[in-house]
This record gives sequence, structure tokens and C-alpha cells, in this order.
Amino acid sequence: MGSSGLPRSGLELAARAALASRSAGRLRLRAQAVDAPAAAELGTGIRSDFPVLDQRVNGRPLVYFDNAATSQKPLAVLEAMEGYYRTTNSNVHRGVHALSARATAMYEAARDRVAAFVGAGESREVVFTRNASEAMNLVAYSWGMSNLREGDEIIISTAEHHSNIVPWQIVAKKTGARLRAVTLTKDTEELDMQHFRELLSDHTKLVSLFHVSNTLGAVSPVEDIAEMAHKVGARVLLDCCQSVPNRPVDVQDLGADWIVASGHKMCGPTGCGFLWGRYDVLEEMTPFMGGGEMIEDVFISHSTYAPPPARFEAGTPAIAEAIGLGAACDYLSGLGMHRVHAYEQDLGAYLYDRLKSVGKVRIYGPPPSVPRSRASLCAFNVEGLHASDVAALLDQQGVAVRSGHHCTQPLHQYLDVPASARASLYIYNTRHEVDMFIDALGDSIKFFTDLNF
Amino acid sequence: MGSSGLPRSGLELAARAALASRSAGRLRLRAQAVDAPAAAELGTGIRSDFPVLDQRVNGRPLVYFDNAATSQKPLAVLEAMEGYYRTTNSNVHRGVHALSARATAMYEAARDRVAAFVGAGESREVVFTRNASEAMNLVAYSWGMSNLREGDEIIISTAEHHSNIVPWQIVAKKTGARLRAVTLTKDTEELDMQHFRELLSDHTKLVSLFHVSNTLGAVSPVEDIAEMAHKVGARVLLDCCQSVPNRPVDVQDLGADWIVASGHKMCGPTGCGFLWGRYDVLEEMTPFMGGGEMIEDVFISHSTYAPPPARFEAGTPAIAEAIGLGAACDYLSGLGMHRVHAYEQDLGAYLYDRLKSVGKVRIYGPPPSVPRSRASLCAFNVEGLHASDVAALLDQQGVAVRSGHHCTQPLHQYLDVPASARASLYIYNTRHEVDMFIDALGDSIKFFTDLNF
Repeated sequence: MGSSGLPRSGLELAARAALASRSAGRLRLRAQAVDAPAAAELGTGIRSDFPVLDQRVNGRPLVYFDNAATSQKPLAVLEAMEGYYRTTNSNVHRGVHALSARATAMYEAARDRVAAFVGAGESREVVFTRNASEAMNLVAYSWGMSNLREGDEIIISTAEHHSNIVPWQIVAKKTGARLRAVTLTKDTEELDMQHFRELLSDHTKLVSLFHVSNTLGAVSPVEDIAEMAHKVGARVLLDCCQSVPNRPVDVQDLGADWIVASGHKMCGPTGCGFLWGRYDVLEEMTPFMGGGEMIEDVFISHSTYAPPPARFEAGTPAIAEAIGLGAACDYLSGLGMHRVHAYEQDLGAYLYDRLKSVGKVRIYGPPPSVPRSRASLCAFNVEGLHASDVAALLDQQGVAVRSGHHCTQPLHQYLDVPASARASLYIYNTRHEVDMFIDALGDSIKFFTDLNF
Repeated sequence: MGSSGLPRSGLELAARAALASRSAGRLRLRAQAVDAPAAAELGTGIRSDFPVLDQRVNGRPLVYFDNAATSQKPLAVLEAMEGYYRTTNSNVHRGVHALSARATAMYEAARDRVAAFVGAGESREVVFTRNASEAMNLVAYSWGMSNLREGDEIIISTAEHHSNIVPWQIVAKKTGARLRAVTLTKDTEELDMQHFRELLSDHTKLVSLFHVSNTLGAVSPVEDIAEMAHKVGARVLLDCCQSVPNRPVDVQDLGADWIVASGHKMCGPTGCGFLWGRYDVLEEMTPFMGGGEMIEDVFISHSTYAPPPARFEAGTPAIAEAIGLGAACDYLSGLGMHRVHAYEQDLGAYLYDRLKSVGKVRIYGPPPSVPRSRASLCAFNVEGLHASDVAALLDQQGVAVRSGHHCTQPLHQYLDVPASARASLYIYNTRHEVDMFIDALGDSIKFFTDLNF
């Protein structure tokens, strides 16, 4: 982190030099006969909407499999933002002039689109944030600091993203509340619902869990969780960063009190995520950040606050970014989220099966055959190799996968590995790319084996 | 606020209908012989960099005088962001693949540019935030909550932006600290330094004041303020939202511990502002928001935190927006901030003088003749007219000014007016536009006078 560049292992540097000298013919991308099902038309059909995908990396066609970290953006989203800046840009709310009125209308229309995309009852249930982490912190600071006290318990899980752990640690430390973590099932590495039921009690004030795990690909039974949690009087927050971009999500069905999601993982720009909350729950919450937009009246001695969502949007919002996120919702809705989900399920199962067939590979999380299946991503390790070396070798062949802890260090502690590599797919990926990835992985493993490593 | 649209006075609606029926000939924009000085070349020379300015609003050429709310963006900034999305988009830090490495380098290069732009000793003294309000809240939550206690005092002023009032009210309420407000000089409506000296004491733990007022246009003697505050052991935070975009700002000269600024007011995109802090001060500060990026190691039981700036940047940053802000710094540096300032001083004085000559107009803040002059903006009222009606009438003639309290309600309470209209200029504005504004204002006043209002 910081500006000092990326950590590189010595092995990676050696491998980089060695691979660079290999001829293209030797490190060939073996053509595979792809038996593409009808649904596969989605991936190839929309490639041209994403110009960034049409490039070569290290002399190879880019295979972008880092979608769980961030998705690419279709032209429609870029054009929506550029169009805003070229025709309308102005600060929103309170302005009576034409540009400000237009900007306000566009910004609030984006809120309407996001609300509709997740089935919110009302647009004012959507709060724009910088990212999903801020949305989590908003709930932690606004609801958590005011409602938690000594003896209260917060249930998370071993597999949560850091953004669903660290804010609760901060709140727990300040309030005296206690963090409890649901473990995973030994066999399928999903949430252990038996353990969840054991942890749940009258002390539980908040249950905050992943909908879809960004590392395991596991899908939580969030509807059941919400129902059980509400029976003991706890509030329910769901991390939907890996579900909202990839499957139909309807907050009415989930039964949660809040969900958070990340705009940049669902074809939207960086700089904008959102919190959805039931309006009566949002109304009970005290302000988080103070500033313009979130107030009703300010005196030096005190202030009164605007109703949600404005109460939680201090300062000039990420206007163009919200508009871009609205356009992303339109784009995904245009494809159809049921179709998106079906396509990803098929492609994800293909990835899982092909990766499973590679020797010495351990994939984390459940197989696609479990009742709730799994997301279209695979975090994995190759026996005897460091994940960052695997990722670096794949990069030499144009394949972008992430390596590291994917912001799930406690999960990696549980799995007893320092890191994993992760291939995560999205709507524009194809079976052909999965084949290219598998071939590159095979070549990488062979390279290390030849080194007698 | 909210999605219910903008407040409209009945009078405005009547005026809108009446104006719409007037012939273009009757409400003509009187041509003025403009004696443009050499410096005026800046405004006309760069107009083509800002395509949004080339449009008609309500049948008239747009005169965008709402720059203190947000500036327009030059093509170079739009192209930097679009280029990032079209060639590089990837999540930053921790990724070993090529796109992630490139994205990280671009993001950190943007930090370097912002650091250089304000004369920071090191890039790691710059923390990217969504906006200046978040930067204020970061200091309030991270430093304020940990360092303030009962009996401590925070000095702000009557003229602060809400983002420099409300966070301190929240902190004061939680910690028992007390808020003291410096009043203004009766004659020039600048910070009353005599009153500041009276308020300053051993109880003062923080002085948080505007560098340039967004409503008064007044320029604070911040170097003296910082020196005096440090002598009593207080920390100094400066709201530089209206100075960084418009004049050379060097944090070494200011002598403050922190400054905040807003990217979207300095040719940058929405969704990105920044906090600058002296590194030793940042290092002492506890985390604000928890999540990815800001941690060193996470366990379920506890976490350790990354050094600044990463410590304060939880979750995926506004990557493209930071890159856009970096490009904005390049753009402004390319023009030269001394030149920008000279141009704005000249244009601002012209605006002040012409507006001053309009009957029944009261301009708030000091005249340009005070030692520190004033910023190139004028908040004003016309005797007997509501500011929003004035703004609405101006809008009918293509002139965009803001009306309302400009997020300075306590100042408006002090001035004993419910609202004001504000014309705020930037680098692309011209004397010809000032003339168009003055003509439109004259027509608006005449319209109301004819109504015997």
C-alpha cells in the first residue's frame, strides 16, 4: 500500500524474466473446442460495450478475471457521466438556476434507479456513499454507537470482508459490545447455520453477514437468517457487494434492515456505493458526518437535521458518480438480472469444473452442487506455490487474477493459508477465456515444476 | 432537499411565466463596450476547454456564476478519467496483475500531484476523501473524539460553512468540549481578530477557520492565526475550499496542522476532495472508518492499522476521481496559480465595482480595498426582493447564480437576512459575462419595480 509500489516476491521477478524470454509458440494458448451453450451469447454479445477488454497485456489478449475486486464499465456508463459534465454539471439541491435544477433531477433520478434495482419501497431508502465500506461505517457509527452497549452482541462470520469486521471492532471497543463470529461448515465451507443458531440469543443486537462471499463464493441463507435474527429482536445488515451485481436482489425478499453494495462492482464508476435501509430504521438513526446537505437549520449553538437520505449525505455528493451508477443499473436491467445470473451460474460452474480438474489445485468454498450453488468466482491455491507467484505468472500470460487475502484475513487464518489466488468472472467473460486461464495456469504450474520448485 | 424538487416561491413562478412572455427584444442584453485588460486573455483563451459553457439557457447564452458551489471541468480532466476507464480500470493496491499495478501507479501519481499543488512536504500527507466535508469529519472523529474533553474549547467563526460547524457540534456534544465563534468586524465584515485574541486561551484545543469565506469573500490572516493558536498549544485546521482553487496555496506558508479542500471546486470531478495534514499529526490520529485498505492485519479479535494516508482511506477509493483531480492540478498548474489569482482578483474587483453601482444592492463582506482584498465572488441582496426571486429572474436570462444560505446559516443570522444571492467567478469567466449579469440584474430589478413589488 501507499505509494511505494507493489510487493514482489523474488521468485516472481525470476519467473517474469524467464517467461519473457520464452517464445510465443512455446507458451502457446492452446485452442479449445468450446461447446458454448445458448446463454453464452451474453458474454460475447456485450464485449464491445467494454473497450478496456480489447487490449493485450504482456503480448497476450487480456483475460480480466478480477471482477470481484472491481468490474469494468460499459460505454453507456462512461457516456452518462461525460454527458453530465459536458451539458449539466452543477451543484445539486437548493439551486434555482437551470443547471442546478437539471443536475438535481439527474442525481435524484439515479437514486430512483438504484432503489428500483434492489426493489426498495421508496427512493428515499437509498443513501449514496463513497463505497460499501462507508455504508457499513455509516450504520456502525450512526446506529451502532447509539444502540449498542456492554453485554450486547454483534454476530458476524469468520468469512466476512474486512469492511464488515473492522467497523464493528471499532464500535465494540467504544460501546463494550462483543463480536461473535459464525464459523464455517467443515465439508462445504459455507456459513455453519447450526453455529449461527447457537450464537443467536437475546444478547444479539445486530447480525451482519455476507450475502455472497467474495472469497468462498458461498451464498448465505439470508432470508432465514433475517427471520431468526428478528425473532430475538436483532437488526440485520447484509453485505451485498457480491450479490447485487450478479443476481436479482430484492430487499423485500431478503428481509434485512439494511444492505450495502458497491457501485464500482456493478458496472458503475468508482466513488459511489450505497446503503439501503428500511425507512423507519433510517429515520431512527442519528447523523453520522456533519456538513452541508444533511442539515435542516444550523445555529452556532445547535443544529437540526434533514430527514433521510439527506441526513446521511454530508457535503457535495458524488453527483456524476451517482448518475453513472444509475446508468449502470439501467445497463444491467437492460440485460436482465435473471439472464445475468443464469449466465454467470453456467460460466462459474464451468470455471469450477475446469479448475477442479487441474492437479494440485485446492478451491475454497462449496461446490456448485450445494443447494444455494456458488458465485462465479474461485479462490484457490496450487500446492507448493505462493498465490502471488501464481498470479504473477498468469499476468505474464495476460490473465488478471487477484492474489492475497481479498480483504478476508480471518478467513485465510481459518483456512490456514497466507493468501489465495482468485479468478472472478462477470457478464462479459466467456468460456473461451476460462479455457485461456486454465491453459495459462497449466503452463504456470509446469514452469514451476520445471524449476523443481 | 430530497427528491421532491426545489423550493419555489409563488412570486418566482409568476415572474417565470411573465418573463417567458416577454419578447427577446424587450429583455435585451445591452451590449457593453468592454475595456478588457491584458489579464482578461485568460478567461476567453480557455473557454473552449469547458464545453459545458457553450450553451443557451432559457434562450440566452449561459453565464455560469455559481463557481463557489462547483466549478466546471476542462476536457483534460474528463479525458483523464475516461482514459483511465477505457484502458486501465482495476482496483488499486495489493494486485499483482498489470492493470492493477497501472491503476495503483496512476492513483498514487494523483496523490503526488495534489501534494505538489499545495506544497506538501510528502505525498503521504494527502488523504483522499469524498469531499471537503468528509475531510472535516475525518479530523473531527479521528482527532476530535480522542483529544477533546470537558472544558476544552474549539474556536470557529460566525461565518463558517456548515461543514466547519456541524462536525464540531457533534464532537462537542460527545466530548463535553465547547464551541466558541469569532464574530466579524462591523465595518468590513472580516474575521474580528481582536475577538479572536480574546477567545484564544489555554482552553483552546482547536482553531478551525475559513481561509477564504464562501459568502463574504473575506480572506483570513491564517498565518497569524496559526502562529497565535500554536502558542497556546492548539491545533489549527483551515477550510481552504475557496482558496486552493483560486490562489497559490502553500501549506508550508500557512502554518496549519490540517487543511481541507474540495476537488470539484478546482476543476476536478465530483466525489473526491482531500485532507492535507502534517505527517506527525496524521500519525497520531486513530482510524476513522474501518474496512479494506486501512488495515495492516485483521483478526476477529482485533486489528492493526496501516500508516497514513491508507489508514484513513477505508474501502475502494474514488480511483478515477482522484486521477481526475490530479489532472485538474496539472491543468491549473499549467495556467499558473499566480496568473489565475491575478486574473480572478481583477475580474472580482470588476464584479464588485459594477454590482456596487447598481441601486438598492447590498454586497456582503469587505471591499476589495482591504489589505487582504476579497475573493472573486459577491453575495448580495437587492432591497425589497427575495434572493431566490432574484436568482430565478437571472436564470430566465441565462445567468446562473446561487441563492439561499450557501451553507452559512449562522452568518445569515448574523447579517439578519434569510438568504442572499451569490455570483461567484472562476478562471473561464469574463468581463463581458459580468456585464451580461449586471444587465440581467438591472432588468430583473426593473421587472419587480414595474410590478410595484
